[in-house]
Amino acid sequence: MKKLVLILLACTFNTLLHAQVITSPDKNLTLKFELSGNGVPSYQLSFKNKPVIKPSTLGLELHGGASLMEGFTIKRTEQASVNDTWAPVWGEQKTIRNNYNELLVTLSQKEQKDRSIQIRFRLFNDGLGFRYEFPRQPELNYFVIKEEHTEFNLAGDHKIFWIPGDYDTNEYPYTTSKISEIPALQKQATVAITAQQPIPNPSVQTPSMMKSADGLYINIHEAALINYPAMNLNVDAKNFKMSSHLTPDAVGNKGYIQTDAQSPWRTVVVSDKATDILASKLILNLNEPTKYEDVSWIKPTKYIGVWWEYFVAGKSTWAYGTETNVKLDQDFSKLTPNNHHGATNENVKKHIDFAAEHGFDAVLVEGWNIGWEDWIGNWKEEVFDFVTPYADFNVKELQQYAAEKGVKIMMHHETSASATNYERRLDKAFQFMADNGYNAVKTGYVGQIIPRGEHHDGQWMVNHYIHVARTAADYKIMVNSHEAVRPTGLHRTFPNWIAQESARGTEFEAMGGLAPEHGTILPFTRLMGGPMDFTPGIFQTDLSYYGTGSNQRVNTTLVKQLAYYVTMYSPLQMAADMPENYARFLDAFQFIKDVAVDWDDTYVQEAEPGDYVTIARKAKGKSEWFVGGITDEQPRTASITFDYLPKGKSYIATIYADGKDASYDKNPQSYTIRKVIVNSKSKLKQQLASSGGVAISIKEGTTAEMKSLKKL
Amino acid sequence: MKKLVLILLACTFNTLLHAQVITSPDKNLTLKFELSGNGVPSYQLSFKNKPVIKPSTLGLELHGGASLMEGFTIKRTEQASVNDTWAPVWGEQKTIRNNYNELLVTLSQKEQKDRSIQIRFRLFNDGLGFRYEFPRQPELNYFVIKEEHTEFNLAGDHKIFWIPGDYDTNEYPYTTSKISEIPALQKQATVAITAQQPIPNPSVQTPSMMKSADGLYINIHEAALINYPAMNLNVDAKNFKMSSHLTPDAVGNKGYIQTDAQSPWRTVVVSDKATDILASKLILNLNEPTKYEDVSWIKPTKYIGVWWEYFVAGKSTWAYGTETNVKLDQDFSKLTPNNHHGATNENVKKHIDFAAEHGFDAVLVEGWNIGWEDWIGNWKEEVFDFVTPYADFNVKELQQYAAEKGVKIMMHHETSASATNYERRLDKAFQFMADNGYNAVKTGYVGQIIPRGEHHDGQWMVNHYIHVARTAADYKIMVNSHEAVRPTGLHRTFPNWIAQESARGTEFEAMGGLAPEHGTILPFTRLMGGPMDFTPGIFQTDLSYYGTGSNQRVNTTLVKQLAYYVTMYSPLQMAADMPENYARFLDAFQFIKDVAVDWDDTYVQEAEPGDYVTIARKAKGKSEWFVGGITDEQPRTASITFDYLPKGKSYIATIYADGKDASYDKNPQSYTIRKVIVNSKSKLKQQLASSGGVAISIKEGTTAEMKSLKKL
Repeated sequence: MKKLVLILLACTFNTLLHAQVITSPDKNLTLKFELSGNGVPSYQLSFKNKPVIKPSTLGLELHGGASLMEGFTIKRTEQASVNDTWAPVWGEQKTIRNNYNELLVTLSQKEQKDRSIQIRFRLFNDGLGFRYEFPRQPELNYFVIKEEHTEFNLAGDHKIFWIPGDYDTNEYPYTTSKISEIPALQKQATVAITAQQPIPNPSVQTPSMMKSADGLYINIHEAALINYPAMNLNVDAKNFKMSSHLTPDAVGNKGYIQTDAQSPWRTVVVSDKATDILASKLILNLNEPTKYEDVSWIKPTKYIGVWWEYFVAGKSTWAYGTETNVKLDQDFSKLTPNNHHGATNENVKKHIDFAAEHGFDAVLVEGWNIGWEDWIGNWKEEVFDFVTPYADFNVKELQQYAAEKGVKIMMHHETSASATNYERRLDKAFQFMADNGYNAVKTGYVGQIIPRGEHHDGQWMVNHYIHVARTAADYKIMVNSHEAVRPTGLHRTFPNWIAQESARGTEFEAMGGLAPEHGTILPFTRLMGGPMDFTPGIFQTDLSYYGTGSNQRVNTTLVKQLAYYVTMYSPLQMAADMPENYARFLDAFQFIKDVAVDWDDTYVQEAEPGDYVTIARKAKGKSEWFVGGITDEQPRTASITFDYLPKGKSYIATIYADGKDASYDKNPQSYTIRKVIVNSKSKLKQQLASSGGVAISIKEGTTAEMKSLKKL
Repeated sequence: MKKLVLILLACTFNTLLHAQVITSPDKNLTLKFELSGNGVPSYQLSFKNKPVIKPSTLGLELHGGASLMEGFTIKRTEQASVNDTWAPVWGEQKTIRNNYNELLVTLSQKEQKDRSIQIRFRLFNDGLGFRYEFPRQPELNYFVIKEEHTEFNLAGDHKIFWIPGDYDTNEYPYTTSKISEIPALQKQATVAITAQQPIPNPSVQTPSMMKSADGLYINIHEAALINYPAMNLNVDAKNFKMSSHLTPDAVGNKGYIQTDAQSPWRTVVVSDKATDILASKLILNLNEPTKYEDVSWIKPTKYIGVWWEYFVAGKSTWAYGTETNVKLDQDFSKLTPNNHHGATNENVKKHIDFAAEHGFDAVLVEGWNIGWEDWIGNWKEEVFDFVTPYADFNVKELQQYAAEKGVKIMMHHETSASATNYERRLDKAFQFMADNGYNAVKTGYVGQIIPRGEHHDGQWMVNHYIHVARTAADYKIMVNSHEAVRPTGLHRTFPNWIAQESARGTEFEAMGGLAPEHGTILPFTRLMGGPMDFTPGIFQTDLSYYGTGSNQRVNTTLVKQLAYYVTMYSPLQMAADMPENYARFLDAFQFIKDVAVDWDDTYVQEAEPGDYVTIARKAKGKSEWFVGGITDEQPRTASITFDYLPKGKSYIATIYADGKDASYDKNPQSYTIRKVIVNSKSKLKQQLASSGGVAISIKEGTTAEMKSLKKL
């Protein structure tokens, strides 16, 4: 008996030596950290006693033979708890609660002269974040990562919403399958996309969204991706195991580190309620606060643009000339006009007029500057200069015209992925903007990256995007980057980086279409890392309308396009269709004109990844609320409540709904608009058509107005 | 008989169809161009009927399967002759004659829809230049080079002065051998050099200098290297054949071309007189004239510096702190001073005083700016910011001190080969210079290039160096680039790019020493492409003098160091030793103070590559001449004439000569100085010691002065 007791004590002692446990503030989540006999660190996560992440090892493999994988002992552990709130410059909420329990483990390798690393775990009520930290020390100053080996071992053959691992593009359509099916589906999931670089082995990008058989929602991503390559996940489909696969650089290395340094946070958002996933602020909470002193110039923006016409109307082009081989310093004064140039003085003024009339902040103009004739497919370095307009775009004249009407023109810097050219010209490009009244720029990275051999998602480009955002701030310029690496919450640190595309967006409706479920997946995947410039608002969804012989279709009803302004969060929202199409549906257009782009609070009403999303939000600083509900190809009844309204007060709700006979493919433009009285106790069951939606704007009303209306 | 005649006629006709011949203006050189039966273009060159280049093929291999190697027919030929003169902004001569006969061949590939290229040959009296030209056409817009296949088939097993082919460094010591011996000597020739990337197969860099058994001197190089990778030469040692081997980029491609485009000129300078090789202006003549409108701010410069002390005296360092891991934005205010920092206010003022006292234009200061603690060996990208000084270097104070004394401080931008970081900061760095009175910068590229995977000599870096020179001109800044690609005459087009190192220079005297013959080879190799910042003038040649235990030695006599100012042409010349050493030999130092750095004319008196060089030059706009003669380890008698002096007038020649018992290794500081009268008929046989020299300054004298002197 005595012997047994001793063994038990020893085991306990051993566990105390090697296993560390923390829980989330509400105690639903438990994180356990331990070292194996060989000193290999691992972690595991459970939610309400159900395994979320089974024991999964941690560590990094370095070049030059060094290994941060095993031989560790725990040198020290520290615990902390934080519970505070903070206010983002803009966002889905006015204040955000930051509440976590933290475990910081310091590990050292005796055989390597006590070389040390740290792993910091933060356990929130909505999930886990952890990262590696590399303190400055004699044994670790500069190192090169061969591969990070962070495992995420799932507890079962979960349903997963995924896109294939790739070093250069995230514009894939989502595949929904079981984890075990990923290898078989990899090939068909990897559709052809410009400049793609798919990973050959079964792998997925992050954010990846999963759902277990017993109803656990699990999202894996990263936060604060700075000076490090982006992470994909290798998939061992038989064992439901995932592990980190970093993006290599031009010579195959996966990260150049100078201590003190930290990896990005690896994040696991967990809940048994899908709405909690969408409501999670974990990734933002893990990002650093901004150091910008003056943020008054950063303004959420609603805009229109000279853009969609390039995709659908068969009538206009970015390019001015018919030539297919031109050089920046030589040829543009001698171009042969193709007579289809979109960014003309006349067309831009038309858009400025429309924006002014309908209260839009800005007009994006693509195709204003020389270089479009041979910008794509040539891996051309000196492709754009960002400062020279075509002959039919008068910078000063249009700036003055816009200013007189209280409208901004939004700059466009398509870089053609020639990042070295963009950096070389960056200050002049931004000074040109400042000199000419531009305060926001949409950037693009279409094509193969220059420096050649680098990838869109590698460490060098990660730092490039940050450099652009930081430099833009010096000029008080807001940045909306397309084709950049997927976001990881850095808009907290760089709040002028107001949106990104970095996923398959509305432009693909004109190039094959988006699946009806796509909009119900994106909030659970791409948008976990930050707002998306999804550019919704297409009213003319059947593109054969333009008589170009196109059979393309935007795969939603018109009302679902309205709902997107609420369900697809972004402080930068485009009414993407052409003015003439809005003019045909001005009553529906009113929702887009009314909807806010910055919020005091957000209420995720109901959601299921791949199926439906219903969200309500309160406009910042106003007594206005907006509701958006969307569904996939399945018609459904959305359950909408109004309990966020101040009690004891009534409001006018304008409900934009799919018509009874509406459907995305047969009758997309069928809709109804009705006004009703609502208060905090109201409830609405709203029918949504196939790939349909509902959009509601709620405002205060005068007594007279309210008298004429019925209660919901 | 009749049949024979017909065949002969047919052959002749055939030859007329396929062979094109031009001669040099003096008819000594003959170039023949022809197409083989398969339409493969080739050329051959002869000098006074002796073969220089045997039939050698031309062409390029492209990626994507296209070939510009065969299947050509001659579509058109054009001939031209040019004979004019032009004036360089600075140089070895006030005016340069440009006299050549040109053949332009247009070739097209019938099977490729008449895809065309052109080859332009220019035959000067001193050699041949030819290049490929790619006209814009439907069949050729954008292409990627897999390899250029230009052959240089030599006529025999020539003596060759060479360094091994390498994509990143040209700082190798020269090997002298026969062509056939190159493979056996490759390994030992490839000494260890930081960040080297030697080509695995037998290969040499250009300029390569050769001498045939029957006394023909042949130099192969290139001119006007713009937007193209630098060329090495594969060596087929058995057959004395060489062929072009371009520098690859990060992904293995060898050139991205957008038509219209041209390759650099491939140059073959030929003569039966070695002095003609040194006197050749072929490479400059092939470069484009400058487009700079105002060149008044470009001034040949004589300077001293805080520099040599870092190599020899064991007392000072570039770095300020003892730390070995620092970050630009974090640590420099908290550094622990190592108390050995070289670039201090006190030391710089001391140098400014010395420069002012002795008439030097500028003081180079290395180690003035933060970043030196961990600048090398870490492949660090954010390594220097180029604008932040260490705590003990007061920018404004020193600028004012220098200005009051009529001296400039020369800026130093060591980039650590992190070109992306340099480009990102370039405008701020140059603006900082302009704001603080700097008008010249020495740049450095020590280490592995970033963009990672690119090479010092690849197309991207070639364009980077040009970008830096061009941008510097916007700020009226002169550039002296170290560790850049070897020059190719571009200082004609960008005359603010006043010098480069790009070879094994004086700093290597402190790191193993230069061979005594090295200085007699460089003018025939490295300097064919442009001036070298060789930084001579070391008076304290035995480095054990400093009591650091060093056994290093500068392998020349003191007088040879003086002679270098004439034999090693550069508009930028450094008196590289420390002021205290000049103070010990002020009489010898007088030569350096007197020698000009810009010239009306140059007279190459005698020369043999690897053995000796004697040159005389006339100072620009002055009645002053300077003579420099050097020898290798063999003592010799230099034959010096003065026939370039105006006839009928006498001048005072101050002759600095090795002492009778001088030698570079046993008695380097033994020298004599004597003044004599000379005129155009004077002749001097001057004894040079082992690795010794002679330096002469010739000026007008007053009657009184001349009365006291004897005639030579």
